[in-house]
Amino acid sequence: MVILICFSPQMLKIARRKAAHLLKYPDVQVISLGIGDTTEPIPEVITSAMIKRSYALSTMEGYSGYGPEQGEKPLRAAIASAFYKDLGIDEGDIFVSDGAKCDISRLQVVFGSDVTMAVQDPSYPAYVDSSVIMGQTGDFQKNLEKYGKIEYMRCSPENGFFPDLSTVGRTDIIFFCSPNNPTGAAATREQLTQLVKFAKDNGSIIVYDSAYAIYILDDNPRSIFEIPGAKEVAIETSSFSKYAGFTGVRLGWTVIPKQLLFSDGFPVARDFNRIVCTCFNGASTISQAGGLACLSPEGLGAMREVIGFYKENTEIIMDTFTSLGFNVYGGKNAPYVWVHFPSRSSWDVFSEILEKTHVVTTPGSGFGPGGEGFIRVSAFGHRGNVLEACKRFKQLYK
Amino acid sequence: MVILICFSPQMLKIARRKAAHLLKYPDVQVISLGIGDTTEPIPEVITSAMIKRSYALSTMEGYSGYGPEQGEKPLRAAIASAFYKDLGIDEGDIFVSDGAKCDISRLQVVFGSDVTMAVQDPSYPAYVDSSVIMGQTGDFQKNLEKYGKIEYMRCSPENGFFPDLSTVGRTDIIFFCSPNNPTGAAATREQLTQLVKFAKDNGSIIVYDSAYAIYILDDNPRSIFEIPGAKEVAIETSSFSKYAGFTGVRLGWTVIPKQLLFSDGFPVARDFNRIVCTCFNGASTISQAGGLACLSPEGLGAMREVIGFYKENTEIIMDTFTSLGFNVYGGKNAPYVWVHFPSRSSWDVFSEILEKTHVVTTPGSGFGPGGEGFIRVSAFGHRGNVLEACKRFKQLYK
Repeated sequence: MVILICFSPQMLKIARRKAAHLLKYPDVQVISLGIGDTTEPIPEVITSAMIKRSYALSTMEGYSGYGPEQGEKPLRAAIASAFYKDLGIDEGDIFVSDGAKCDISRLQVVFGSDVTMAVQDPSYPAYVDSSVIMGQTGDFQKNLEKYGKIEYMRCSPENGFFPDLSTVGRTDIIFFCSPNNPTGAAATREQLTQLVKFAKDNGSIIVYDSAYAIYILDDNPRSIFEIPGAKEVAIETSSFSKYAGFTGVRLGWTVIPKQLLFSDGFPVARDFNRIVCTCFNGASTISQAGGLACLSPEGLGAMREVIGFYKENTEIIMDTFTSLGFNVYGGKNAPYVWVHFPSRSSWDVFSEILEKTHVVTTPGSGFGPGGEGFIRVSAFGHRGNVLEACKRFKQLYK
Repeated sequence: MVILICFSPQMLKIARRKAAHLLKYPDVQVISLGIGDTTEPIPEVITSAMIKRSYALSTMEGYSGYGPEQGEKPLRAAIASAFYKDLGIDEGDIFVSDGAKCDISRLQVVFGSDVTMAVQDPSYPAYVDSSVIMGQTGDFQKNLEKYGKIEYMRCSPENGFFPDLSTVGRTDIIFFCSPNNPTGAAATREQLTQLVKFAKDNGSIIVYDSAYAIYILDDNPRSIFEIPGAKEVAIETSSFSKYAGFTGVRLGWTVIPKQLLFSDGFPVARDFNRIVCTCFNGASTISQAGGLACLSPEGLGAMREVIGFYKENTEIIMDTFTSLGFNVYGGKNAPYVWVHFPSRSSWDVFSEILEKTHVVTTPGSGFGPGGEGFIRVSAFGHRGNVLEACKRFKQLYK
């Protein structure tokens, strides 16, 4: 049996540091702009659908038991129509899940332990963590802060946060998150066209994480499937968590186009379907009712209003750090602000900010070695807290 | 990448046969006593808690985002107190899940692909299916209807549905479901004491599935942890699905006692915790509110009332087959009736019943080769449907 002594301890360490800080300063108001957890209420047009479904479950006419493991048909159709209209994706390509993180693991089970992986560096730790669990990564090389068998695609201000693919080795799977967590960078159409070509040339499968696509303001693609040919090389996974404040409600989806085949011609979607039917029993039907309400015209409007609120937070944070003379990245197309502290350890910066301002951020190095020298500031927070945190940042770095 | 051509197609085949039957006989009333899906409304004392939580999510005071991956503390405490009182299990040993099937797969990820497995024969297909996916099973031996590397523990009327452990080979993991799905047999205290001793002698871990324990009427154990020493050798997984009609709401739990260690002394719970934190993000908080309401005094009473209703269904089905001269098993401690059709193919019996009575049952052979010659009749159904199905059984087999 595998013993996982190499599990990424980033979030645990932050939580411990926060708890220790609270013990040390029991009377201060600690503000969390650390983990990307939503803070604003879910619009009533969405919760009322969940209330209605909950009530229906107590009636003879409205009760339902097991739903399809792949999700309820109307929700699959609504997701296809809301996010993939005119992209050749239909409801049969959509698998409803209890969140993108869970589907990333189920995808890893499909891939098995004998595959090779590439990840953006920095990126959301779940890709590497789930690879570790499947035994794909090889040993952790302490001096490099890297796993031996993972290809780290460096994304930095120097390359516009898009990897130089000419230096990237061939892997079976490429995890790619856009807008990226933590850098906030959204890949352009040209960049994604390069990525799709790279995957096609190498016989790789892209797992494209678009969990923040709704935050994109400019005309960069919201889906990998906007790129011609992507349906033959890519899976897309996304979530209602950051779209509708569903971090606790648990609802997401994964798109596996029927055109995506393993090298022997077997459809990837059929394999994933088997995993979903064996390892999962569908998302909660109450959550699914909420998801369907999100995608009604009123729901979409209400959802965008909350996102607009978080985007105002983002601007406040960006303006603050910019005015203090920092180089600030992300923010425009994502709820994360990626602040550069050149030549400094990101854990030292994290500690300095926590100690001096009582604000919890996230040290960049937890997202991969390429995150060293940065901190991520999340825009999920009540307005008063964001304003107060920014006031404290200004006092610290003025 | 593994291509899973050997996935158990039982449920799919039944669904297809049912659909074909509906096409052939568009005007008949087809009654499903096949898959174990609950049919009766969830008591309002439970749904009202889910309504309340859904509403709270739309308020500033009541909103919450990510919960602990292991489940909310009050629910973990309530599960420990409701089902494991005085058994030395505390809330820290409880992991809340989105259902037993999902947790079985997460356990398989903990175990990895290099372990050996034993299952009751017959038993719930998820154990073998998830083993297949993890690559633990070896090849399927068509002549035996068995996987080469799985130890099948035959459970039949001859051995009182408890395996003769003196003939069972040593495996790393032993899946044991009691009351058993499909046979309905609940193991006695003496039998479970034997099983715990067997696991201890062999250094095996028992995964004890108690998803139907609330249906036990006699004084057989409701938890493996009633057996002295079980905490050192067993994991228990269970679910609100059949307790409270939560098949669509999705809520379950797994107990991993802190005393359970791998052979190198590493706590199994710590490994499972890592998998849960990496591959899962907690059950829906709305479902968890429902689960907590289930365990209030009113909720427990309401839950037992619905279970009492299903138990009356079970008696009606048992009486019917008994009166027709069949040997009937299960039923007393489980919502499943296991009917013996000696020397007949269970798929033939399934087809005969479907064709002649328009009632969907489940052929026993889908639960393992030991299920051949049996059909499982589920007691989940509206009373009118159960009575009508039994009337038709009487006409067919009179």
